[in-house]
Amino acid sequence: METNPILVVGGGPAGLEAARGTADLGYKTILIDSAEAMGGTPISAGYAALTPDLRNADEALQEMIGAVTGHDLLEVRTGTTITACSGKAPRLAVSLQGPKGEESVTAGAVIVATGFQHFDPGRETQVYGYYEFDDVITLVDAERMLKAGNFLRPSTGQQPKQVCFIQCVGSRDRQIGNQWCSKVCCGIACKQAIEIRDLAPDCRVFIFYIDMRAYGFWEDELYWKAQEEKKVNYIRGIVTEITRRGDTLVVKGEDTTMGRPMEIPMDVVILSVGMEPSEGTLEMAQVFNLPLESHGFIETIGGALNTVATAVPGVFVAGAAAGPADLEDSVSTGGAAALKAATFLRRSNGKLTT
Amino acid sequence: METNPILVVGGGPAGLEAARGTADLGYKTILIDSAEAMGGTPISAGYAALTPDLRNADEALQEMIGAVTGHDLLEVRTGTTITACSGKAPRLAVSLQGPKGEESVTAGAVIVATGFQHFDPGRETQVYGYYEFDDVITLVDAERMLKAGNFLRPSTGQQPKQVCFIQCVGSRDRQIGNQWCSKVCCGIACKQAIEIRDLAPDCRVFIFYIDMRAYGFWEDELYWKAQEEKKVNYIRGIVTEITRRGDTLVVKGEDTTMGRPMEIPMDVVILSVGMEPSEGTLEMAQVFNLPLESHGFIETIGGALNTVATAVPGVFVAGAAAGPADLEDSVSTGGAAALKAATFLRRSNGKLTT
Repeated sequence: METNPILVVGGGPAGLEAARGTADLGYKTILIDSAEAMGGTPISAGYAALTPDLRNADEALQEMIGAVTGHDLLEVRTGTTITACSGKAPRLAVSLQGPKGEESVTAGAVIVATGFQHFDPGRETQVYGYYEFDDVITLVDAERMLKAGNFLRPSTGQQPKQVCFIQCVGSRDRQIGNQWCSKVCCGIACKQAIEIRDLAPDCRVFIFYIDMRAYGFWEDELYWKAQEEKKVNYIRGIVTEITRRGDTLVVKGEDTTMGRPMEIPMDVVILSVGMEPSEGTLEMAQVFNLPLESHGFIETIGGALNTVATAVPGVFVAGAAAGPADLEDSVSTGGAAALKAATFLRRSNGKLTT
Repeated sequence: METNPILVVGGGPAGLEAARGTADLGYKTILIDSAEAMGGTPISAGYAALTPDLRNADEALQEMIGAVTGHDLLEVRTGTTITACSGKAPRLAVSLQGPKGEESVTAGAVIVATGFQHFDPGRETQVYGYYEFDDVITLVDAERMLKAGNFLRPSTGQQPKQVCFIQCVGSRDRQIGNQWCSKVCCGIACKQAIEIRDLAPDCRVFIFYIDMRAYGFWEDELYWKAQEEKKVNYIRGIVTEITRRGDTLVVKGEDTTMGRPMEIPMDVVILSVGMEPSEGTLEMAQVFNLPLESHGFIETIGGALNTVATAVPGVFVAGAAAGPADLEDSVSTGGAAALKAATFLRRSNGKLTT
């Protein structure tokens, strides 16, 4: 049964799982990543430990990368982008731009796994002073510090005494146009709070939140653990402003549970930035003619009953390219997309002579 | 490539997706359901419309059932249970008990998709008076009423003027031992609130919650929609007691945002009961020797990177048998489990001669 290869676009968790999946089923697979190193955002953004199990991110992603490297049926092309596409699956003519120049591939099916990008807190909201104050950082910056094994105040290099997270930066916000909840930031903040308390036991850690969305097992494994074992302070409230007093940041807002204004000095403020469709996701939507859903991610057409089918037959989507996704979602939809792409080729096969 | 058939246990969304998946890949598949009718909890519990897209549940599940019915490679056995298992995959000797008596099948791989059961609000907590007051019902009871097309007070048969939901009944509760968040109940309450307001525009609807876990697109598609378009009242608070005054229920507790006690008369109180592992899930864990994770669901062993592998080679799990899952989770893990079961058989095939 000879078919045109399945093209998987994106070498993050969803793409790695999808590519391994189709190759394991016996389908020639080409995995394309625009970056030089695979692993997706967990690697490019320098994640330290994964949520929820706090497993070393490098180690975990290397395991996934190992599974696609040297696979008989799997060809990996890094530093490669897709520039154009014409025709219909299972005979999609796809143009690739790689280190060796332009090239054309006929793909039997495509899985788009181009993921998300983190919201840029300076772009549309200045209220938190991300580009103004050295000690205002994002979840991603914090992750890099945790990976380096120490959590220090950027402005002084000293260990902070008081740190807070501000949730829903770039999420649940009509004003900036991001109406969705990014799903993972509550869990990640709980995880980082635990890690900061482990690294700096004298540092008090606060999390300012609207709703603590620690769904499923994250409830006790992350949220309760942070609160009870690690003494992280959860404050339901709205932060309206961050200013500087001397060399300390001052977080102003309202504690909505206590019903009173708050003004708390902080050494470091961590903005829990949400997920937006990545540039690569928007580019691939255009190249493959995939409609976007109302929030701007790639639209799936099966409602809850088909999480990976797009409007274009033979083109599937996996992971955060279709909307906010945790790691488990990405891996599960990666597997589901592999199944659907293989099934599509089996169905087409009667008509297909390569 | 002849292999022993893949056995899928459970005919709900996860099992239906898994069985169709393996059969579509060319593997002989046997789908077993202990119930007489497939469809899982959405059908047996009489769901009206699915969360989040409000699609008719019967219609959606019939579509999934249609895909496994009459499939060349797929044999469906309803009214059938698994009583014993011995050996190792891809040669698992499985005993079935069906309408025609006992029978033995050699399975190449198994996918356990035996789902969840709703928490019984009378079993461990009497505080809400579920078995005492006719007008205290559960999400499941409400769903049945919505399916019948009218939402009436059970005690009078009249349209209610004031209805509330109480979230986290049987979830996030150390006292009863259910420490997890059941993930879907916030979204389902939002959905039902919208439907009740549509059916009974004069009825005021309240949702008492701890954290409104409308993750991802549920934020604006369900939560904002309920609040802004349908004028549903969300009250962050703790309900401590339900009593009766005359023929009205009185909900007592504390509004934690306003910081004051509340006492609100209600015609109907809907308890948002959470998810527990089903009896079938616990039975299958025993039959197949699958360890349970700390909350009592079937344990997966790959952390976030493998959502369907169990400790037993060749036996996979999909859907809510492994923990709280929404419909999308169930369908995605169903697909991922189909991929892994097929891959397992491909890997074993060198050694396997049927």
